[in-house]
Amino acid sequence: MTVLAKTSAELSSESARSLYDQLATRVKDLGYLQGVGGLLSWDQEVMMPPKAADIRAEQLRVVAGLCHEAATSPILGSLLEEIQKRDLSKEFNPYERANIRLMNKSYREETVLPKELVQEGAALNSKAVNAWAEARKESNYAKFAPFLEQHIKILRQKVGYKIQGGVCEEARKINEKARASLGLKEGDECYKGYYQALLNDYESGFKDEQLQGLFADLKQNLVPLIAKIKAKNFQHDDSFIQGNFDVKKQAEFSHRIAKEIGFDTDAGRLDVSTHPFTGGPDPLDVRMTTRYTVDYLQEGITGTIHETGHSLYEQGRNQEYAGLPVSQALSLGVHESQSLLWERMVGLSKPFWTYALALLKEQFQDPSHENLQSVTPEQFYNAFNQVKPGFIRIEADEVTYPLHVILRYEIEKALIEGDITVAEIPSIWNAKMKEYLGLDVTEDRLGCLQDTHWAVGLIGYFPTYTLGSIYAVQIFKAAKEAIPGLDEHLVKGEFHVLKKWLNENIHKQGSLRESGDDLIKDLTGRSLDSNLYVEYLTNKYTAIYDL
Amino acid sequence: MTVLAKTSAELSSESARSLYDQLATRVKDLGYLQGVGGLLSWDQEVMMPPKAADIRAEQLRVVAGLCHEAATSPILGSLLEEIQKRDLSKEFNPYERANIRLMNKSYREETVLPKELVQEGAALNSKAVNAWAEARKESNYAKFAPFLEQHIKILRQKVGYKIQGGVCEEARKINEKARASLGLKEGDECYKGYYQALLNDYESGFKDEQLQGLFADLKQNLVPLIAKIKAKNFQHDDSFIQGNFDVKKQAEFSHRIAKEIGFDTDAGRLDVSTHPFTGGPDPLDVRMTTRYTVDYLQEGITGTIHETGHSLYEQGRNQEYAGLPVSQALSLGVHESQSLLWERMVGLSKPFWTYALALLKEQFQDPSHENLQSVTPEQFYNAFNQVKPGFIRIEADEVTYPLHVILRYEIEKALIEGDITVAEIPSIWNAKMKEYLGLDVTEDRLGCLQDTHWAVGLIGYFPTYTLGSIYAVQIFKAAKEAIPGLDEHLVKGEFHVLKKWLNENIHKQGSLRESGDDLIKDLTGRSLDSNLYVEYLTNKYTAIYDL
Repeated sequence: MTVLAKTSAELSSESARSLYDQLATRVKDLGYLQGVGGLLSWDQEVMMPPKAADIRAEQLRVVAGLCHEAATSPILGSLLEEIQKRDLSKEFNPYERANIRLMNKSYREETVLPKELVQEGAALNSKAVNAWAEARKESNYAKFAPFLEQHIKILRQKVGYKIQGGVCEEARKINEKARASLGLKEGDECYKGYYQALLNDYESGFKDEQLQGLFADLKQNLVPLIAKIKAKNFQHDDSFIQGNFDVKKQAEFSHRIAKEIGFDTDAGRLDVSTHPFTGGPDPLDVRMTTRYTVDYLQEGITGTIHETGHSLYEQGRNQEYAGLPVSQALSLGVHESQSLLWERMVGLSKPFWTYALALLKEQFQDPSHENLQSVTPEQFYNAFNQVKPGFIRIEADEVTYPLHVILRYEIEKALIEGDITVAEIPSIWNAKMKEYLGLDVTEDRLGCLQDTHWAVGLIGYFPTYTLGSIYAVQIFKAAKEAIPGLDEHLVKGEFHVLKKWLNENIHKQGSLRESGDDLIKDLTGRSLDSNLYVEYLTNKYTAIYDL
Repeated sequence: MTVLAKTSAELSSESARSLYDQLATRVKDLGYLQGVGGLLSWDQEVMMPPKAADIRAEQLRVVAGLCHEAATSPILGSLLEEIQKRDLSKEFNPYERANIRLMNKSYREETVLPKELVQEGAALNSKAVNAWAEARKESNYAKFAPFLEQHIKILRQKVGYKIQGGVCEEARKINEKARASLGLKEGDECYKGYYQALLNDYESGFKDEQLQGLFADLKQNLVPLIAKIKAKNFQHDDSFIQGNFDVKKQAEFSHRIAKEIGFDTDAGRLDVSTHPFTGGPDPLDVRMTTRYTVDYLQEGITGTIHETGHSLYEQGRNQEYAGLPVSQALSLGVHESQSLLWERMVGLSKPFWTYALALLKEQFQDPSHENLQSVTPEQFYNAFNQVKPGFIRIEADEVTYPLHVILRYEIEKALIEGDITVAEIPSIWNAKMKEYLGLDVTEDRLGCLQDTHWAVGLIGYFPTYTLGSIYAVQIFKAAKEAIPGLDEHLVKGEFHVLKKWLNENIHKQGSLRESGDDLIKDLTGRSLDSNLYVEYLTNKYTAIYDL
């Protein structure tokens, strides 16, 4: 039955618990509907027949519209307003208080933007993606540039509304300070701090200032490390991972590993899609996909382990607060930390291959892979951990990857804050590529046109990939300190020990804290620290490349 | 953007076309949302991991609630009220007029029932299904009876509201006449005509009186035909369809046939599920499922062809009116006619097996099926067309099947109209089973507890199975008259000729007409005719059993 709107007088006579319960019911129903959207998207990538594409877009549109209606319902607003008048610390436990905080945050963020502006952005997305795809194909940046201009314009408007609406306090402060120091009057254009606002759409509560510091450190340390590796001009034998590997057998191996790591197939599915992802409608229904290429063994294995890491985060969410925001992942960076921790700290490690190589050999016993049979875990580890600076971010190894991200961060920040123009991007991109990785970009297809993010208005998203890497190293270090003999467990394939620790210390913590940095501080006693990441890479690759 | 409610004065100044367009937009959006429900249900049966069951129920609940809200929106009511004041035959073509008629019908049917009553029915369903499952397992009718009582009570209330609300004119007339002839006063209980109302939930516009006539004819003719076949005590050799048939090979064969018949895999999928069905979110996204049993070859083949028939109806819907009710299937009986036409008139025919047997032999060349290789189409046809009276409806052949349905029809009609009690069902069931099929039911598990329909309040549904059989025979007869050399086409595997004819004459007609009988009359020049069905069965089985 439709709950009729109550007057604020009526609400004020209700108990705090009753207000909370009403909020929870509404937010859970919204969550179910968002889950339905998740299933539609998964199905679209994995199952849907091609002729259904237009219909699916309509279905997604209708569901998104209903989600927006539910998320901005005035009743929700009244309940939130009333509950915040109560003594929250007396009435509610920390998880419940986090729910109230997060419900309020979502409500304000959803209501602060004019619907027309949101629709304008959504309409631009599909046009911009088409233009970008064509531009990339022809390596013709000019075809994409006008759409990026429009995105920047819309994004600036959105941030403007958010700052005005009081949902971006950090960005507001930066902007105010800049205005003051530049002596600007009201009405004068100034986009300082706007990147901070966009960053927080993906990495809640994280400060751009901290990010700057982390990225500057990384750049300072990784550029020389990469140069050193390059100068060594050495390559370990990797002939045994070359050749054709039957994709069915690859999938069997990867599925086995995913399940041994702890993916619960009673609460999720593993399928194949063109672009691997982890999605689906609920923590009890996690849909993870991967892809296998016949002549690229490493992609299928590391890709599956990566998505398994994401899936464990989802499947490990706090069921006590199921359907409520405190059980949700804290940020994209923390989510990525879970995939990267399993992919890199485990899946690219010596202990892991000491365990898994025998299984891989068992799986590929045919004569064409005879050379695999005599390989040692050490040799396999060396072959699986190669550093090769390249143009393409998604093909990058863990040493060069951060520089791909830093390059994008520097450009997109300067762009949104008005320090560079859209037209300047290709030349700036290429200069940075030369500086950071020593590469000459010959075509924009291999340069600033390679990623789809900017075409769908994702600015502020890229840093989360590298935040994820740093989180992963720091979290894994904490895990090693907390779990006696973790390496020995991994050597025996006893992954549950690590999974359990992550379940308790990361997954179940959900969005209890306000930022990834708060989570890391509580867990390790120190802020997110790029030195640990540099140390990890330096030690690892000094050994591999005998630097 | 939310369309704000308009006043009736505002609406009265709008053109008929504008009103129609607003209706169409709303109804299409509702259709997308219903399609989402279709995908959720398909996924639940085919893909969903087990732990997601409770969450899926919540997702379906939320989507159903939103569908109900959209379907009963007052704006829809105002638009419908206003448009019906216009000169429809001047302003709109017959398809558009059918849309207006059907939108109005749905709106009235959705709004006439109190929401509490609908929820009471839905809540009863899950409890009743559990009770039924337990009762069936233990063959203990008493455990299920109280739930059936409650269903009857709720269904009678629903029909009462519908008659009062003017959406069941035929039922109202029957009831009024009965009341008059019995000399009842207002307030006196009388449920005559109530079956008519329930029947029309599944077989729109069909008269119970006509159904009675058809079923009486069938009973009169089929009971002696079955007795004659039974007395013959003869069985054709079917050893070559016994044994174990690899399910993967069965699936390959069935998929090939489905695609040759015309299932468009670019606009649908074929998967496996425990209970075969055709569903999915849209005519451009038809999800059909089937099942294969290693030692029951016939089930997988006929089952796949059956679902292909349903799928062709869906995929063949009129795309010019996509998303609008005129493009929808006319009734469950007509839908079933399309599955049965392909399953029985084609898939169980000599011409079909003259074509398909060679493919089947190719598929099963292993030594264990050596005896299949020398079989002739005639022998195969005889083996595939056996008549065996049995207890279970879903395992019944085409000769005995109608009696299973007639038995249920007679019982459920007498029950809802108050002529028998719930407690009397088992004894009446068993007596009829003896009379119609000569069988002694020893356990209710094999008798009145075998079907799930009554447990979910489906009364009035069973007749559509047999209406489908009769429609199928009559439609196929028309096709044969219209398509020169149809049998020869089938012998060559040229199924597209028949598919095209059905596309034009049935599928694209959608819900343009008000009943299946109207469709049949326009197509064949005569009402639905059980004599044709009896004639078909008599001729076919007289030949097979040499009667």
